Amino acid sequence: MTSKNIVFVGIIASSSSLNKLDINSGYIAVQHGKIVKKGSTDEFVKFEKAGEFSSYKIMKLSRNQFIIPGFVDCHTHAPQFPNIGLGLDRPLLEWLAKYTFPLEKKYSDTEFAAKVYDQVVQRLLTNGTTTACYFGSLHVEGTLELVKSAIKHHQRALIGKVSMNKENDAGYYNETKKELTDVEEFIKTVISYQNELVEPVVTPRFAVSCDKELMEGLSKIAKQYDCRIQSHISENLSEIEYVLQTNPKCKTYGDVYDESGIFTDKCIMAHAVHLTDEELTLLPSRGVSVAHCPASNTRLKSGLCPVRRIINANITVGLGTDVSGGDNASILDAIRRTMDISMCLEMQGSPNYALNWKEAFYLATLGGAKALNLDHKIGNFDVGKDFDALLVDVYSKGSQIDEYEGALPTTSEEYVVDLLQKFVFLGDDRNIVQVYVKGELVKNLL
Amino acid sequence: MTSKNIVFVGIIASSSSLNKLDINSGYIAVQHGKIVKKGSTDEFVKFEKAGEFSSYKIMKLSRNQFIIPGFVDCHTHAPQFPNIGLGLDRPLLEWLAKYTFPLEKKYSDTEFAAKVYDQVVQRLLTNGTTTACYFGSLHVEGTLELVKSAIKHHQRALIGKVSMNKENDAGYYNETKKELTDVEEFIKTVISYQNELVEPVVTPRFAVSCDKELMEGLSKIAKQYDCRIQSHISENLSEIEYVLQTNPKCKTYGDVYDESGIFTDKCIMAHAVHLTDEELTLLPSRGVSVAHCPASNTRLKSGLCPVRRIINANITVGLGTDVSGGDNASILDAIRRTMDISMCLEMQGSPNYALNWKEAFYLATLGGAKALNLDHKIGNFDVGKDFDALLVDVYSKGSQIDEYEGALPTTSEEYVVDLLQKFVFLGDDRNIVQVYVKGELVKNLL
Ligand SMILES: [Zn+2]
Ligand SMILES: [Zn+2]
Repeated sequence: MTSKNIVFVGIIASSSSLNKLDINSGYIAVQHGKIVKKGSTDEFVKFEKAGEFSSYKIMKLSRNQFIIPGFVDCHTHAPQFPNIGLGLDRPLLEWLAKYTFPLEKKYSDTEFAAKVYDQVVQRLLTNGTTTACYFGSLHVEGTLELVKSAIKHHQRALIGKVSMNKENDAGYYNETKKELTDVEEFIKTVISYQNELVEPVVTPRFAVSCDKELMEGLSKIAKQYDCRIQSHISENLSEIEYVLQTNPKCKTYGDVYDESGIFTDKCIMAHAVHLTDEELTLLPSRGVSVAHCPASNTRLKSGLCPVRRIINANITVGLGTDVSGGDNASILDAIRRTMDISMCLEMQGSPNYALNWKEAFYLATLGGAKALNLDHKIGNFDVGKDFDALLVDVYSKGSQIDEYEGALPTTSEEYVVDLLQKFVFLGDDRNIVQVYVKGELVKNLL
Repeated sequence: MTSKNIVFVGIIASSSSLNKLDINSGYIAVQHGKIVKKGSTDEFVKFEKAGEFSSYKIMKLSRNQFIIPGFVDCHTHAPQFPNIGLGLDRPLLEWLAKYTFPLEKKYSDTEFAAKVYDQVVQRLLTNGTTTACYFGSLHVEGTLELVKSAIKHHQRALIGKVSMNKENDAGYYNETKKELTDVEEFIKTVISYQNELVEPVVTPRFAVSCDKELMEGLSKIAKQYDCRIQSHISENLSEIEYVLQTNPKCKTYGDVYDESGIFTDKCIMAHAVHLTDEELTLLPSRGVSVAHCPASNTRLKSGLCPVRRIINANITVGLGTDVSGGDNASILDAIRRTMDISMCLEMQGSPNYALNWKEAFYLATLGGAKALNLDHKIGNFDVGKDFDALLVDVYSKGSQIDEYEGALPTTSEEYVVDLLQKFVFLGDDRNIVQVYVKGELVKNLL
């Protein structure tokens, strides 16, 4: 892969805030992977005539194509991908014991890990996920294979070796001391790769699998190496009950993490389905973000997450596919289910009205970038950011979106908004004809 | 298309009831489009040796393939397909006035109608819908183009010219007398085609658009020609309110249809989101079926349909995509959303527990066949039925389902059930590698 200087000319859509999706005809100039200039179509014509783009490849989009920011998956479990679509008839804790831990244990085999992770990373890039925040497995070497796959396929990735020190039936945990040593080894190794796209994340699985000693040790490591930290919170009522029982001095689940030093402004928590009012104050006061995972919340019967309520509490929210509790590895699916679930809550009388498609699109792009503390680099097309982007062709051959000649408005803004809506509601990987990460072309159907 | 005699040998899955999905290794022999014999793999070997299948083409499935019944879409609007994914920010009655009626009016142009319908029928066949129950538009000639497309592409189809006689802003309605004449003309013309796969359906749009005189006239026509009759019921609270206001003598929405003679055992009603206890007694007493349309119920903010409650009231239920209120033209999507919505109700404390994937699969196949009074011909693989079937390849190249070598159980029933689950939760048209209608191959990716 060689990074070329390119100017994209055509419809460009990206969010500047939850309420503002900008859709314009214009251009974006990319040099060494960064957005160096952008503007209107008229400005492009002027600059082009003046020879300003003579060293650039010019990419003119067709009428049915547009450029959007790459999708950000804030929460997914790479080792669980083989289980996608399976076992979704059980609630969280049962599902972990029966389906998840036995599979994750296999990643002590690095050869197996390397093969699976190579497919996982390519699957996500195919689906337009330019940035993923991954849980790996308990294994240092196994999870390093995920790091290598992300580097090999040029995906932006935050990757965590999972930490657990509480005994379970599968025997899938470490003694505290070994675990802390392993985590440090993992972090040092990832840093030693000096790859600009991949960073390590400290990853206590959740308070069911980690005791306070381990979590305190992990938060120290996170501070020492200035790492992000990720975990799960309040996914399921039995889980919450168990955590409060085993931490009798804590009033809320959030307190358990907070008292261990886990809640910082570099922390991202998955699910947050059943947060209390106290937690809705605590999390934003610490700068903790949330990965909303609507697919697995429904499939594992965890609950309807009131995402509007979380956003209104000033918590930064991104979307997660949460494979394989979630049954779909595409952020497009997470966008749709975010709309669905929030609409179900609204229809059931919740005061937290549903998110519309533009808001869900924001969560999938800039929202996710903010949640992962990456919005200085990605999430939209501000000049100076890296060019992580999808080239979408709405009527791409063989996709689910059919072009019906003469049926839609033929001019103007309406046509463009219609195109974008069709992609958001009905598009799939076939419509994502090119994927760029930091200016590198990592998928190309053209 | 020429119908050959074929024996399929491999994994075969189909439902015999809501609670019983049979998944077996075996064979199905198809002669002149009908299932003439079936049995175990051992029986196949015995018969083959004895030369019983010498005049048959033998189709041996691979380890990752299986045969299931074709999908039945009990409710969709062919003329609205160009609007798929658009305008889903408005409730039903507004959406009809702004998006739907203006588009449907265009089908007075038969050339436009022919082009759109040709794409619609092919889209549904691509998605594995071997039987569709369609709403057309108000136009006789326009809707006959849909009939011609179904015949041309060999889809099993029930097709209705839509009836409306109440004034609306779009001017999209007929005077009662003309409407009744038109419907009769439509029915006679479809019958005159003498096509065994396509039948006309009497189609009052809904009680908002039709007065009692029209509905009485239509039910007479349905009886006279022994036609099915289809409409919408209790989709949305404003709609119900309007219907009760304009029919002050009726206690329920259902009464309005029942008093017009619409409720018979050849009647299928879409939505039924907000049925009262009285209606839950009335509908089954008349033999009325329901098309459950979870996508549009959410997208148009109509409500969470308690489909378990409807099933428990002994009402026959099938699934509908309800394009373009629904934003997806695949019954696989309807299966998933049936699970999602019923799970949302269960999670919110409803006593009507969620449907699992096997139950949703039943609704998509045999349930739909029963709802459309077609279960003597289709819906599963009973000997004597027509062979409407999908050949699914779970790891079909380029699909969303990845094969992770060595990750899943390698033997036995478990492997097969895993395959089927993966398809139900994550498959799409790329996994549907062949589609048969009455033994004819109408889609082939092999
Ligand atoms: Zn998770
Ligand atoms: Zn409808």
